[in-house]
Amino acid sequence: MAKAPNISLPQGVRDILPEEAQKIGFVERTVLSVFEGYGFKRIITPLLEYVDVLSLGTGEWLRERVLKFVDPTTGRIMAIRPDITPQIARVVATRMRDCPLPLKLCYNENVLRYQDPTSAKSKELLQIGAEYITEEPSPEVDAEMIVMAVEALRSIGLEDFRIDIGDVGFVRAILRGLELDEHEKVLLKDVIAKKDTSGLEELLKGFGDRISREERDILFTLTSLYGEEEIIERAMSFSRNRATEEVVENMHIVLEILKKRGVKGFITVDLGEVRGFDYYTGMIFEGFASGIGKPILSGGRYDTLIERFGYRCASTGFAFDVENIVSALNTHT
Amino acid sequence: MAKAPNISLPQGVRDILPEEAQKIGFVERTVLSVFEGYGFKRIITPLLEYVDVLSLGTGEWLRERVLKFVDPTTGRIMAIRPDITPQIARVVATRMRDCPLPLKLCYNENVLRYQDPTSAKSKELLQIGAEYITEEPSPEVDAEMIVMAVEALRSIGLEDFRIDIGDVGFVRAILRGLELDEHEKVLLKDVIAKKDTSGLEELLKGFGDRISREERDILFTLTSLYGEEEIIERAMSFSRNRATEEVVENMHIVLEILKKRGVKGFITVDLGEVRGFDYYTGMIFEGFASGIGKPILSGGRYDTLIERFGYRCASTGFAFDVENIVSALNTHT
Repeated sequence: MAKAPNISLPQGVRDILPEEAQKIGFVERTVLSVFEGYGFKRIITPLLEYVDVLSLGTGEWLRERVLKFVDPTTGRIMAIRPDITPQIARVVATRMRDCPLPLKLCYNENVLRYQDPTSAKSKELLQIGAEYITEEPSPEVDAEMIVMAVEALRSIGLEDFRIDIGDVGFVRAILRGLELDEHEKVLLKDVIAKKDTSGLEELLKGFGDRISREERDILFTLTSLYGEEEIIERAMSFSRNRATEEVVENMHIVLEILKKRGVKGFITVDLGEVRGFDYYTGMIFEGFASGIGKPILSGGRYDTLIERFGYRCASTGFAFDVENIVSALNTHT
Repeated sequence: MAKAPNISLPQGVRDILPEEAQKIGFVERTVLSVFEGYGFKRIITPLLEYVDVLSLGTGEWLRERVLKFVDPTTGRIMAIRPDITPQIARVVATRMRDCPLPLKLCYNENVLRYQDPTSAKSKELLQIGAEYITEEPSPEVDAEMIVMAVEALRSIGLEDFRIDIGDVGFVRAILRGLELDEHEKVLLKDVIAKKDTSGLEELLKGFGDRISREERDILFTLTSLYGEEEIIERAMSFSRNRATEEVVENMHIVLEILKKRGVKGFITVDLGEVRGFDYYTGMIFEGFASGIGKPILSGGRYDTLIERFGYRCASTGFAFDVENIVSALNTHT
């Protein structure tokens, strides 16, 4: 091989050569065609946004992960979009508020976000996603989105995957009842998310008798509330307030629908799950293909995000990580 | 309609709503499938590049139209890609130099560039393009690219369009022979590009007897060297050096092939044409649909661009402006 000059790329972006690009093209065409079959219509959002506008929707987690720079025309701070969902929330709340609900929108775009606010490592992601916007939240919408995600994955030839379903409302509702300050609750959420029982033990010791024996049992149960459908029954048995009951009822209906639609075999439940964007308000889900450590899809319900742009409506959405899906295809087929 | 908060977008980017996005999707699928039929394989280039690397390929025109900012990790200046061709030149010269030639590559990407270096007005463009890379330049490759462009446009339902073919080498070769300084040549190129005969008259007066009567006639002829095939014969009659002869011969072969391939009816010739990127070295072409002021495609031969990244090979490429194509579809169908 002849000597090439020293030519480098910024970290976080890369060249995708024909062999992989062809697979990406196949995934794009197939997934968008499944989405279309479910009545979703594509929209195309801009590469750049003003940070102050975008921040209405991103929440803190994303806001710290945005690549920003000054708009030379106006002096305002611009960002490369880190996520499409807040952009769609903006579009729906401004330019599409006269369209009758429900609105089913999908997209196929590149986004750029930092992996971690401290390391300054950014990454370009290729995403194909969908948002199902209705007047009121409903478990039927949540279930429909999961059914569609399963069908899209099977259409591209994946069978060996699972979708973990949780609900940000469950842990939040339990933490809300505790006599702890916000910082302590964040620490608690963190050990529960990691299912770190010894970390939890340690933390609870520090809280002393501010945590009752019953609350202690519930917190430990949260680290093991994952598995199959029986989790729902276990959760019902200790549902202690209206908020946790609602979560369990919603998830029960979702699982019944998934059973009827024949996709139950791909689903696991995790009621200790707390990951995902700050804008999620209800059910959350992540998809994993065996042998691939990173999620191939993630999504959830966000019932207050569009309202932050001035229009009250409910929504559930998710996005596939196209490159992780191609990794899964390479491993499995 | 309920009142929305005051939410604006940076100038140059916009939301594309479902009706238009659906047409864009149709154009993308159809054009990529035509390209695939001609043996082109897609590649996906990164959203960001280091400016010093990109500048190897962009030339001055593009370099002044790049949105730049500092990479927080390294302190180096990064840019949002303003054009895909220099990126493909970089990829071919570095990661694909072991692939046997010819290489036929295509892409479907967003780029961002300033309209004008002084006004600071940027614009996001959606482009679908192709690059045909060979060891040596050849009119057969130039013709093949034009045939493919015509087929792609007809496949999406456009019939009322024309492709103007020129060659940057023609005017350059004529200017090279004149006893003028670089600045004077730029002024001359400008009036020829605009076919501004009174501006040319004015300019030539100022040059006095440094321009011979014969040269003067040739320069005036340049402003009217556009039309059908007969232009080639007129150009042959006053070809005054080897370089202009080569241009005319190359274009003659290209036109013969286009005639054989049945696309001659879409072609006009303009030997006074000088527009296009600095990296063009030979034939250039632009496509126009009737009723749409802006080009729907532009391209040309660039035989030194890949070499600037360290690998000597020849190439012809072009890109469709997807939004202008959708405007044409809206006007014509």
